[in-house]
Amino acid sequence: MSKDITSRADDYSQWYIDLVRKAGLADYSAVKGCMVIKPYGFAIWENMRDTLDRMFKDTGHVNAYFPLFIPKSFLSKEAAHVEGFAKECAVVTHYRLKNAEDGSGVVVDPDAKLEEELIVRPTSETIIWNTYRDWIDSYRDLPLLINQWANVVRWEMRTRLFLRTAEFLWQEGHTAHATRDEAIEETRKMLDVYATFAEEWMAMPVVKGVKTANERFAGAEDTYCIEALMQDGKALQAGTSHFLGQNFAKAFDVQFNTKDNTREYVWATSWGVSTRLMGALVMAHSDDDGLMIPPRLAPTQVVIVPIPKPTPELLERANAIAADLRSKGVRVKVDTDDQNRPGYKFAEYEKLGIPVRLGLGARDLENGTIEVARRDTKEKSSVELTSLTSHVVDLLDAIQANMFERARAYRDSHITPVDTWDEFVRLLDEKGGFLSAHWDGTGETEELIKTETKATIRCIPLNNPQEAGTCIKTGKPSTQRVLFARAY
Amino acid sequence: MSKDITSRADDYSQWYIDLVRKAGLADYSAVKGCMVIKPYGFAIWENMRDTLDRMFKDTGHVNAYFPLFIPKSFLSKEAAHVEGFAKECAVVTHYRLKNAEDGSGVVVDPDAKLEEELIVRPTSETIIWNTYRDWIDSYRDLPLLINQWANVVRWEMRTRLFLRTAEFLWQEGHTAHATRDEAIEETRKMLDVYATFAEEWMAMPVVKGVKTANERFAGAEDTYCIEALMQDGKALQAGTSHFLGQNFAKAFDVQFNTKDNTREYVWATSWGVSTRLMGALVMAHSDDDGLMIPPRLAPTQVVIVPIPKPTPELLERANAIAADLRSKGVRVKVDTDDQNRPGYKFAEYEKLGIPVRLGLGARDLENGTIEVARRDTKEKSSVELTSLTSHVVDLLDAIQANMFERARAYRDSHITPVDTWDEFVRLLDEKGGFLSAHWDGTGETEELIKTETKATIRCIPLNNPQEAGTCIKTGKPSTQRVLFARAY
Repeated sequence: MSKDITSRADDYSQWYIDLVRKAGLADYSAVKGCMVIKPYGFAIWENMRDTLDRMFKDTGHVNAYFPLFIPKSFLSKEAAHVEGFAKECAVVTHYRLKNAEDGSGVVVDPDAKLEEELIVRPTSETIIWNTYRDWIDSYRDLPLLINQWANVVRWEMRTRLFLRTAEFLWQEGHTAHATRDEAIEETRKMLDVYATFAEEWMAMPVVKGVKTANERFAGAEDTYCIEALMQDGKALQAGTSHFLGQNFAKAFDVQFNTKDNTREYVWATSWGVSTRLMGALVMAHSDDDGLMIPPRLAPTQVVIVPIPKPTPELLERANAIAADLRSKGVRVKVDTDDQNRPGYKFAEYEKLGIPVRLGLGARDLENGTIEVARRDTKEKSSVELTSLTSHVVDLLDAIQANMFERARAYRDSHITPVDTWDEFVRLLDEKGGFLSAHWDGTGETEELIKTETKATIRCIPLNNPQEAGTCIKTGKPSTQRVLFARAY
Repeated sequence: MSKDITSRADDYSQWYIDLVRKAGLADYSAVKGCMVIKPYGFAIWENMRDTLDRMFKDTGHVNAYFPLFIPKSFLSKEAAHVEGFAKECAVVTHYRLKNAEDGSGVVVDPDAKLEEELIVRPTSETIIWNTYRDWIDSYRDLPLLINQWANVVRWEMRTRLFLRTAEFLWQEGHTAHATRDEAIEETRKMLDVYATFAEEWMAMPVVKGVKTANERFAGAEDTYCIEALMQDGKALQAGTSHFLGQNFAKAFDVQFNTKDNTREYVWATSWGVSTRLMGALVMAHSDDDGLMIPPRLAPTQVVIVPIPKPTPELLERANAIAADLRSKGVRVKVDTDDQNRPGYKFAEYEKLGIPVRLGLGARDLENGTIEVARRDTKEKSSVELTSLTSHVVDLLDAIQANMFERARAYRDSHITPVDTWDEFVRLLDEKGGFLSAHWDGTGETEELIKTETKATIRCIPLNNPQEAGTCIKTGKPSTQRVLFARAY
């Protein structure tokens, strides 16, 4: 157990913060609620971003960039939208500073007040749909499939690195379609992209579902989501895909000429994931010794440590092994540090979550072998140098698969059907995870359960089996179970 | 000549704006001074960004991300810095809106006033050096070689798409070093990276030089730059690399333990290029028919147009040709539009600046040939299908080289030695370009020349020959010529 990281058993929340800070992922900044993403954290985020970007392009999307600022009046144009975002936004009111008359520094220049305040975007539906009005005139302009990578700001009072910060990085897709069906199909397609990314790249199993009306995005007709489970039994919403109907098209008057030469409002979707995924990645897999990064996202997949220290001979051999691994597309680092001892280095690389560590000693070389240690199981084995590269390539796949299977086994064992209120309350505290329970379908009951237990309806799973039952809270009739959990 | 683009001869400035808008690079937005970067423009910017990012990483740099907001007090800590940026910054004063009491919409909530105003970053030296204080303690922590890709805001009153906008995208490198010499070496190294990128990727020749004191970055000891020449004879600063001395280390108290166990202030550099390069790319190469994108940066390098329309047979053949080209790494689009005629399409692809167009007709196929048109010279030739792929690969290289040589010939013929004030004034109007003239080395004379002619000293070229002379304006003694120009 790493001595500078609190154990999960002692304080899960502190364990998370320690890990994020000590492993060099992110840290607090001088600006309340804003974080600094440190180089190692950013390298992981770059891998996530580049992978998602490729998936978006493979599904026909292109990138563009829209302004950081949104005129205040735009926010008001969609009633639910402004209700959802007005209470947590950064407002730009002036465009100049000047020297204070008493020489004490700079102050806001009262003469440089904006006629209309600008909001730092909390999300970009309004500014984008105001732009789409100029871009869409005919059915030939549709579908419009655009994504943006950007920073956004939501003024959160209680923040936590990656999971909830005032500024965060994300992508937001904003698409425009000629028909309702096509927009719904797009919404579902992007949900599938997110689920594939979460499971195949982050090794994090997710439940695909749809949100209740209470939990919908402000301005959406339907919000689809992927929900993951963290190791402490709390759920985490990892991505959302919204069917926006014609709400924004109507708010910004975006109509098109149909093939039949009528004018109709355009149908919309939006979908996004953010640096919050970094928090999910940490909490889905890591342990008391540090991070565990799935091989497909790890900036360094293999580290080669000369033992006991990097002599010229060992380094030459390590570099040759690294070159061979790199030729197979493996991301390798050779440790050249001559200050620290192997034991210290091993602990550091475990903290960073590097999937595979190769220990290269003089005696191994004589025997034609090398020590291979995997981060996920901590197993070590001695491998023939002649077959090392193919062994490591296979091992990286095996680690990726094992991390997913382990997380899935945990998740599957934490979806618990519950039929009584007492059991519901007890299991929330004792076991956590998703509780699959009947609900009467009303927002009032949902809100009541949330107030009493802090559990929310995470989603109604897609293709949810329909069965008659009675609401866990009110005893009223219900047609299906939904997934409750306490959540990040 | 494209009918929706003003000609350069008629109105160079309008030609530029037409091109940027009509070719789908960018457009004005609803927010004064902010632009929307459209998908085609963003695809070119992505190629620029990815190339530069690779070059930064190849020179040992890593990416990170720092907050969008800077506390007002931070700006004031470096005297020259606040002087340079306070007059053009967006100021966040509140963090919440609320419903207006008269029901007219949302208004700023006066109860949600920030204790200290936040500035939307115009550049990040202050927030980054405030962070580096926590990251740097020993010589072992140095050098720190970090880059950030980000949006920044400078409140410009007179804006022009890409060239000068309130919000723009850029990268900013911020490095920390143990010695003055090492920091200067870094400053020069990154200038070389920028020059290589401009010349080898953008096909845009640049002069490397150093700025005069008047033109230095606010807070720098020396500002190095690359200066390019546009087709109208005006110069454009395409990138800057600053040696910051210990100014920011002292302002934010960043010291380190040396090997000799003394405490010393850290030495700094910063360097950046922005979406302004998009404007430079347009103005360095394009013509009255549209853009001309250098092959190495073109999102689409080759377009295949079936003539007169995309029949199944022609499309099958076009797709086979495209597949073969793609296997050699060429970025190809097959035109499948069955609405428009070839002449219209040719003009559209010329407007987009796609380097090579292949016209594929039934008769060509019978003859085993295809028509190859290059965008830079407008030459067409008939090429044997059997050797098409290697021909196109070579042609893309030839176009890249030709675009650079053409721009270099223009630039070289527009560096004019001038020895009298009358000639200086006359040539500025009649010929433009860089005027190489003696200057007495004072800021007063530089300012006087700027006021009278709008020409500024673009740079003192690196390795500038030293020669005795007399100042073009004051007749005082001078030791070297410097480059004057009117500039964007």
